[in-house]
Amino acid sequence: MNATADTFVVNKTIAADSLLIFENADYQIRLHKNASVPWFILLPKTDVTELHALPEGLRHKIYQAQDAWAAFLSEHFHADKMNIAALGNQVRQLHIHLVVRYENDPAFPNPIWGNLPMREYDVLDLEEILISTRRFANQL
Amino acid sequence: MNATADTFVVNKTIAADSLLIFENADYQIRLHKNASVPWFILLPKTDVTELHALPEGLRHKIYQAQDAWAAFLSEHFHADKMNIAALGNQVRQLHIHLVVRYENDPAFPNPIWGNLPMREYDVLDLEEILISTRRFANQL
Repeated sequence: MNATADTFVVNKTIAADSLLIFENADYQIRLHKNASVPWFILLPKTDVTELHALPEGLRHKIYQAQDAWAAFLSEHFHADKMNIAALGNQVRQLHIHLVVRYENDPAFPNPIWGNLPMREYDVLDLEEILISTRRFANQL
Repeated sequence: MNATADTFVVNKTIAADSLLIFENADYQIRLHKNASVPWFILLPKTDVTELHALPEGLRHKIYQAQDAWAAFLSEHFHADKMNIAALGNQVRQLHIHLVVRYENDPAFPNPIWGNLPMREYDVLDLEEILISTRRFANQL
């Protein structure tokens, strides 16, 4: 368990924009509420705001998680391309976008930020995502 | 040395948009020609197009390079925030953007892609970057 895990509080904007999908001692995986593309957020439990500044042990775990979840999401959603990004210009709490892109999605080939219309999830689609991600998380 | 290093060819768009700053057996560091923000590109020598799909040994070296260069760039250029991103929607050759952001840069708080006016480097600024990055690279 990393030092900040006990006191970690999710930023209000991230909490409002996404749903908690999976959680362990080191990070959360959240689903962005915009259903236009499968858009996940890897949220390390830390107060550090830059990836390179994470303590080495946690940084290693976060890169492992990034790789494992990106591989799963890419395969499960049949991505044309994964977009992996730690920006943090608007919300400083460290978070890594794991975004499944399709050549025919509404923003392609541009980045999603600022280019994606809002679409709400259908309840059945949401249920499928919750079931499949839980099944994957149980194998971690 | 990784398997692709001998036959690696830089994508034409990346080659046209950026200058080679540093190179070793596993990756290049390139400087984007747009001087609006200090914008670097970490280019792994590989045919693989997704970070998560890199062979484990090379993937580890690339994350180490990403961390080391991001830490150096953040400090050297007094970044307000680093933006780290592997997108690849327009150019599939795997490349990681290492972008120094300032709260008063022309695109902030939006991502740089599509939001940055073109500005050419002053020769003296370019020389300073070449000298300081070479000094850093020699310590790697």
